[in-house]
Amino acid sequence: MIAETLTVGSDFFAPRAAIDDLLHEFLTEKADTAPVPRQAALAMLLRDFLDAGKRIRPLLCVAGWRAAGGGEDPGQAVRLAASIELAHACALIHDDIMDGAGSRRGRPTVHRRLADHHHLPSTAEQFGLGGAILVGDLALVWSDELLHTTVMPEAHRVAVLRCVDLARSELIAGQHLDLLTTGDLGVDVETTLTVVRYKTAKYTVERPLQVGAALAGADQRVMDACSAYGVPLGEAFQLRDDVLGVFGDPERTGKSHLDDLREGKCTGLVAHAVRAGSPAQADRLRTLIGDPRLGEREAAEVRGILTETGARAAVERMIEERYQQALTALASAPFPADVVRTLADVAEAAVRRTA
Amino acid sequence: MIAETLTVGSDFFAPRAAIDDLLHEFLTEKADTAPVPRQAALAMLLRDFLDAGKRIRPLLCVAGWRAAGGGEDPGQAVRLAASIELAHACALIHDDIMDGAGSRRGRPTVHRRLADHHHLPSTAEQFGLGGAILVGDLALVWSDELLHTTVMPEAHRVAVLRCVDLARSELIAGQHLDLLTTGDLGVDVETTLTVVRYKTAKYTVERPLQVGAALAGADQRVMDACSAYGVPLGEAFQLRDDVLGVFGDPERTGKSHLDDLREGKCTGLVAHAVRAGSPAQADRLRTLIGDPRLGEREAAEVRGILTETGARAAVERMIEERYQQALTALASAPFPADVVRTLADVAEAAVRRTA
Repeated sequence: MIAETLTVGSDFFAPRAAIDDLLHEFLTEKADTAPVPRQAALAMLLRDFLDAGKRIRPLLCVAGWRAAGGGEDPGQAVRLAASIELAHACALIHDDIMDGAGSRRGRPTVHRRLADHHHLPSTAEQFGLGGAILVGDLALVWSDELLHTTVMPEAHRVAVLRCVDLARSELIAGQHLDLLTTGDLGVDVETTLTVVRYKTAKYTVERPLQVGAALAGADQRVMDACSAYGVPLGEAFQLRDDVLGVFGDPERTGKSHLDDLREGKCTGLVAHAVRAGSPAQADRLRTLIGDPRLGEREAAEVRGILTETGARAAVERMIEERYQQALTALASAPFPADVVRTLADVAEAAVRRTA
Repeated sequence: MIAETLTVGSDFFAPRAAIDDLLHEFLTEKADTAPVPRQAALAMLLRDFLDAGKRIRPLLCVAGWRAAGGGEDPGQAVRLAASIELAHACALIHDDIMDGAGSRRGRPTVHRRLADHHHLPSTAEQFGLGGAILVGDLALVWSDELLHTTVMPEAHRVAVLRCVDLARSELIAGQHLDLLTTGDLGVDVETTLTVVRYKTAKYTVERPLQVGAALAGADQRVMDACSAYGVPLGEAFQLRDDVLGVFGDPERTGKSHLDDLREGKCTGLVAHAVRAGSPAQADRLRTLIGDPRLGEREAAEVRGILTETGARAAVERMIEERYQQALTALASAPFPADVVRTLADVAEAAVRRTA
């Protein structure tokens, strides 16, 4: 939750209202002009779903546009940013199906909502599953429509599209690897970092910055600086998330610190502890992590092992190392001074947050 | 199965080899350059999946390009056609998940294959589901990559992209309506025709023709002629499919004539019979259709009712009416004479087929 930690009024968040308005208008228009009237419900469902988003990726897209010189009118950067947010909605909706998740951001997931409101009880679950796959697909198709109607010079378009296509394909590579290793605590730290690199570092930070930069006609130096800042920061961001998922204060993070452990996700934190711990400690982790009935007492035991094995400290060092890399990259980045300041604030908020 | 019915050597099929080669090379390249090595397996899976396709939509795309004047070199039309086929792979893979289908074209579906080959039995089903959602998403993302790298004049690009985006959104509208009405034999004939219009007529015939035509810079008259021919023909094609699904010779169609009935799909044929039949006949249809244990004897009873109520004859009239509409549209279409002949052959094959 970068939002609460960053200085209120930071210009990083300035485009949020414009992005939100565009998404709201676009989806309302889709509902009003649905070719088959019942599709209107899908557009409304998507609009509701998007309401709760934090807009990290689209805001980074606009920041990337400014980093590359941008201009007076951010209108097309906002349109491209909204396109990125819609594609992300597809990723989240499909991810929730894959995880069998019942809620997201305190609300029922799309497949749950569709199943709960279906008129035929006998086919409700199958309808929820199928309907949510379709809503996700629709989000991706409409993301394309926003992308395809963003006005940009022909010379910039090639770079923008290449970057968008790459980001999506990389995300899927990361999700596939994540899915392959779910439930397997024998995964090495390097593999968990590969998942982090593709699912978060590239997809959430590096590529959105680059897509925005490409819209502004960025040269290779600017694109490389987006990577040099974005990849280590994105990794640090996700590693902080992994730590907060287990050690965070649920009152501040707004989510249970049991969920990650119950899900059995092999994060870098866990992979490190399994390697560094004694055979007995590794055995306990294998027994406890992934147990859907894991309670407070077991969670405390896991936290103990993660601390005693040095895994927590090792991950904190990895976060700090990557944070410093990002700052170093920023110091020599060919970005305007105000964008450098904004991105330094973003980096600090992403890494130092407690929520 | 238009293929076997059309004159061998028809120029409609001429671009097939080029489309196949491009898809094969594109996916092999994706496997060779996968950012995460394990993604190579997904590219190979998609390549295998595509092998069995009939290529109706991409071939219609190239035909549309020729209808609008095309040119000497069909290279970019073939690239765009391949993009359409990859997006269609997404639709089929996701559709099989929604239907819980175990096989397609005589092979295990993607979600089944992934589940059957997963290394952890406890998570195999969930992995098959999640993996197949991802493979479908990947097909759509790579379809976009082919679309975005198709070389076309700026002026044509706007129309091509608008048409592609529309086609995908319409398909989802049709699939959503189909999903909403699955298992409900109270659906009226008009609703079944709306599903047919969006899932087949527009998506399979009209839009692929128009996408190809737009690439060649078609004017509004050509685009309208694609609709005037494509929509009625696409409806006739699907209605023929519905009839063959129940009355076809399994030896010729290559699929059981029990599947459609067991699935409980309310086709126009069934909806007509439920309305036109006596209360006793309608009751029998409601009992038999959708019963997963329906056998040969029950199928024969359903066929009897569909015939006695006049539903079969009514659907045959609907097919003939639409076929004639398509031919009439073709007679005044501003297409080159050889394209008119090809599309007339395609229409006859689509409607008169027995397989």
